[in-house]
Amino acid sequence: MKLIKKPAKKDWKQLLRRPTFASESLDSIVNEVFADIQINGDKALKKYTEKFDKVTIDNLIVPIGEIESVENKISDKLKNAIQLAKNNIESFHSSQQIERKVIITSPGVECWQESRGIEKVGIYIPGGSAPLFSTVLMLAIPAKIAGCKEIILCSPPNKNGLIDPTILYTAKLVGVTQICKVGGIQAIGALTFGTESIPKVNKIFGPGNQYVTAAKQQSLSYGLAIDMPAGPSELLVLADESANANFVASDLLSQAEHGADSQVICISRSEKFLKEVSLEVETQLKELSRKNITASAIENSKLILLENDQDIIDMINEYAPEHFILVVENEEFYLKEIVNAGSVFIGNYTPESAGDYASGTNHTLPTNGFAKAYSGVNLDSFVKKITFQKISKKGIKNIGNAIEIMADAEGLQAHKNAVSLRLKSLN
Amino acid sequence: MKLIKKPAKKDWKQLLRRPTFASESLDSIVNEVFADIQINGDKALKKYTEKFDKVTIDNLIVPIGEIESVENKISDKLKNAIQLAKNNIESFHSSQQIERKVIITSPGVECWQESRGIEKVGIYIPGGSAPLFSTVLMLAIPAKIAGCKEIILCSPPNKNGLIDPTILYTAKLVGVTQICKVGGIQAIGALTFGTESIPKVNKIFGPGNQYVTAAKQQSLSYGLAIDMPAGPSELLVLADESANANFVASDLLSQAEHGADSQVICISRSEKFLKEVSLEVETQLKELSRKNITASAIENSKLILLENDQDIIDMINEYAPEHFILVVENEEFYLKEIVNAGSVFIGNYTPESAGDYASGTNHTLPTNGFAKAYSGVNLDSFVKKITFQKISKKGIKNIGNAIEIMADAEGLQAHKNAVSLRLKSLN
Repeated sequence: MKLIKKPAKKDWKQLLRRPTFASESLDSIVNEVFADIQINGDKALKKYTEKFDKVTIDNLIVPIGEIESVENKISDKLKNAIQLAKNNIESFHSSQQIERKVIITSPGVECWQESRGIEKVGIYIPGGSAPLFSTVLMLAIPAKIAGCKEIILCSPPNKNGLIDPTILYTAKLVGVTQICKVGGIQAIGALTFGTESIPKVNKIFGPGNQYVTAAKQQSLSYGLAIDMPAGPSELLVLADESANANFVASDLLSQAEHGADSQVICISRSEKFLKEVSLEVETQLKELSRKNITASAIENSKLILLENDQDIIDMINEYAPEHFILVVENEEFYLKEIVNAGSVFIGNYTPESAGDYASGTNHTLPTNGFAKAYSGVNLDSFVKKITFQKISKKGIKNIGNAIEIMADAEGLQAHKNAVSLRLKSLN
Repeated sequence: MKLIKKPAKKDWKQLLRRPTFASESLDSIVNEVFADIQINGDKALKKYTEKFDKVTIDNLIVPIGEIESVENKISDKLKNAIQLAKNNIESFHSSQQIERKVIITSPGVECWQESRGIEKVGIYIPGGSAPLFSTVLMLAIPAKIAGCKEIILCSPPNKNGLIDPTILYTAKLVGVTQICKVGGIQAIGALTFGTESIPKVNKIFGPGNQYVTAAKQQSLSYGLAIDMPAGPSELLVLADESANANFVASDLLSQAEHGADSQVICISRSEKFLKEVSLEVETQLKELSRKNITASAIENSKLILLENDQDIIDMINEYAPEHFILVVENEEFYLKEIVNAGSVFIGNYTPESAGDYASGTNHTLPTNGFAKAYSGVNLDSFVKKITFQKISKKGIKNIGNAIEIMADAEGLQAHKNAVSLRLKSLN
């Protein structure tokens, strides 16, 4: 791995640049598919499934029978692992529920917030080599806790016209209400407009390739919401000599195996430690199944030597990592000063893969520096917080005059009048 | 006002359609201004201010002296009103802070959330006839509570090159860190890219005309976040004969005066009541200063007679009003069943204008049906919630095997290896 020693502040921006990738505009293809779906519904979905996924689908909805038949294809070992992850994700996300707290802002003026689940949510789960059933857990569990009434999962069929059994099993376990055999732009279009088989939803969640990403972005202009903008996955590790170089290397590699465009960064005050990590990365890499992808990502990646804590935290906040592993003796300083990160993993025994699967935190996190403005997916992502207010006669007497004065100063006479009429009636 | 009696469900969609307005694409003008700002910075801002606002500006930043000099232009009466509103908004938004709650999801596995203020936020305050200082309160107060370090306010200069004194006064009072004399697309461009005078921010808030809205939308593709998609303001009132028709009419008019594209709807089970409201609207309208605008909005507006509570709540949830006034004897039913609304105003003495100014709730709310997927602005809008996890040796022993099994099933060997190495070290 490339080692950069004590870079000057003026070079940080360049140094921390994410690997760029050709972002040709996919708008025209998205617009074409969307327009077709608006007119032809299911027929268009089947057409594009044939064109892009090379498979003919009769029924876009996975029938109950097909879902139930996978039950005995999943090993008990895997079922138990999924159950443990489910319990932990449930208990962490349940803890994010807000209580109704009535605030009396002025005597007679009561204000409060209540959460309501978004009624219909869509969950996109990519197909391809790795069946991402863990993402089903991460998205459907908080949706269920939030009280979303319909949870529609879309995933592309494989060459045999099927969805991976583990995805089906997990979806049933966590209460997905409908599973649809459709992927890519056409899946996002179906969720955006609704078709004969697939309902229009209010918000779309989930990862995907550049086509899915472009389609999700386009769904915004039709009034839908999405979880967050997408980008390649990334990890920043800060470690000192109290850290285990073996473990750190394994974490860097686990992030790097996601894709050639993944980026990993390791910062330390110890050059000796960084060199150990580098050697360990070389050694462990040789044994990995996704060796080529992982090696490409490691090319984009950096070991950075810095001298003091303030510079280090400044650099981390500037980078705003999706995942931040922290293994240093003075961890309190960093926990206090970290402002921009998606999720933080503390200590030698907290690998990032714990958060990917089973610790309980969500793995859908802001990449590409979006952690400066966005949270990862959490219970908030599946609810609207509605405000309520109830003002008594006494209350309007207390604040009415202030409202009249302010409305008047803004030139909004009817706003003022709504209060004046009430105040007059109380004289 | 138009009275619609017992509409059939199949006609609801048409009936509840928002007034459409020509949404010509403004992308090309936004792109032109943005490109110019990226190259020419302040010089471009001044050029477009001259072109669009017809005024020449030397200094884009309002100097402290100019801000302090307005202090004695604001009446004590207005100062006190603003102070009362500030106190209420502060106490309601402060109550939205989350506590750090450590959840032990499995023995030895600790997970928690912490909020961090978004470091740099931009607040856009439109110019024009009405100086919206109330929006300064609604956006800067929660930003301050959230811990945002920089709060940059942009507002267009008037013909004399000045910003309204009440806006300046309010901005200083609530701790805005920089006030910039720039509006329109060029203001949003400045906040998106940064210039010599104006810093790039992470998220942009605030209302604006179609140019500002298009520019905010475009800022998303440069990695910024925005508060929410925009649309014309709207109000839905549900009232029975326990409501005061006078008050209801005044509320409908107060919403209608915002703009010709505003929409107000009043639903009731009582035809007699709806007719009273209609007469009252006619009468009150005659006295209003913004009579013409208000009358146009009233054209788009409807009185709807429905027969039963279930139909009524279904229609309200289908419409998803920005503001929802509820004045009925069986309010509990509606409070329980309302799912889609921005803010709810309960009872005869809770006019919508209370929430616009001084009750404490926020007035930046989702319009145009966006309440199905979006919350209004609240403390969450100004923070990121970061997740943290700390796993002990015991913890990784408890959940490590589940992670290994799941990573294996997803074909992610390096993810598995990060756990296996740790487990092995503990044998």
